[in-house]
Amino acid sequence: MSKFCRTVAGLERLVRRSWGRNYHATKTLYAANWKIGKINHIAMACPDIEKASALYRDVLGAKVSEKHPQEEHGVYTVFVELGDTKIELLTPLGEKSPIQNFLDKNKNGGMHHICIEVDNIEEAMKDLKAKKIRLLSETSKIGAHGKPVVFLHPKDCNGVLVELEQE
Amino acid sequence: MSKFCRTVAGLERLVRRSWGRNYHATKTLYAANWKIGKINHIAMACPDIEKASALYRDVLGAKVSEKHPQEEHGVYTVFVELGDTKIELLTPLGEKSPIQNFLDKNKNGGMHHICIEVDNIEEAMKDLKAKKIRLLSETSKIGAHGKPVVFLHPKDCNGVLVELEQE
Repeated sequence: MSKFCRTVAGLERLVRRSWGRNYHATKTLYAANWKIGKINHIAMACPDIEKASALYRDVLGAKVSEKHPQEEHGVYTVFVELGDTKIELLTPLGEKSPIQNFLDKNKNGGMHHICIEVDNIEEAMKDLKAKKIRLLSETSKIGAHGKPVVFLHPKDCNGVLVELEQE
Repeated sequence: MSKFCRTVAGLERLVRRSWGRNYHATKTLYAANWKIGKINHIAMACPDIEKASALYRDVLGAKVSEKHPQEEHGVYTVFVELGDTKIELLTPLGEKSPIQNFLDKNKNGGMHHICIEVDNIEEAMKDLKAKKIRLLSETSKIGAHGKPVVFLHPKDCNGVLVELEQE
């Protein structure tokens, strides 16, 4: 490589590095009003929640809660404690359960959504809207844990239904 | 309620409680050789891993690793750090990737499996076999993190592919 080429290559690296720093600085500034946290839970829809609870409690030996009716959400929930992130077992409650359609397509059950904590859900919603991520509701709603939540469109999240929960 | 009925009801409660204690004691003894731990990661299969990485890094502001080729597993992996539990983004590498079939059925991508840590994978495998949970391989294999892993049959786990990883 000639001296000239080496100088050009060196300059290129310098520009890339400098751009990289500015890019990250801009990104941090832009997203400064909210922060993403840990994964709160992974929700699994189950045709038979007693059987699913027995798997995690009796076969795998995890700590498993009682079954709770969540009438306003159209589901029964059971929580499985596995470190900092829980599994939320769901089964339909009532005629118009929001998970019935999923269970019609997935007869054995399956992973329904993932819930990630945020420190400021209103700022997160504003920011995500500006970044062209579709939200499934205009405003946040009170979720099964009594905290504000919002769902993001699976088509904007690589095929995964993502719930954000205010912590 | 007559005195006789109250006595019978009291005895019933006593038997139920006593059976409950023995049941749990037996269970603990039976599963004493291994313990379940935390959720290590949730794996998501992605048709476009760069786009998925950008969502978690640039839109949601999470810490996201570089893309790593895992030739022996037929996938590229990217890890997203969200507290104690990671998201593992997967995309096919080579002609016979084990996640190609899943992506053919789920064009936008989706949640592929969940990985839970165990303290003794060989004891866990013996115990689960005895409890009629089908394992997808006769022996554990070295997974993408260099540790022994085994997969459990989704039909025995409420429609969810569960990976156990030795910690």
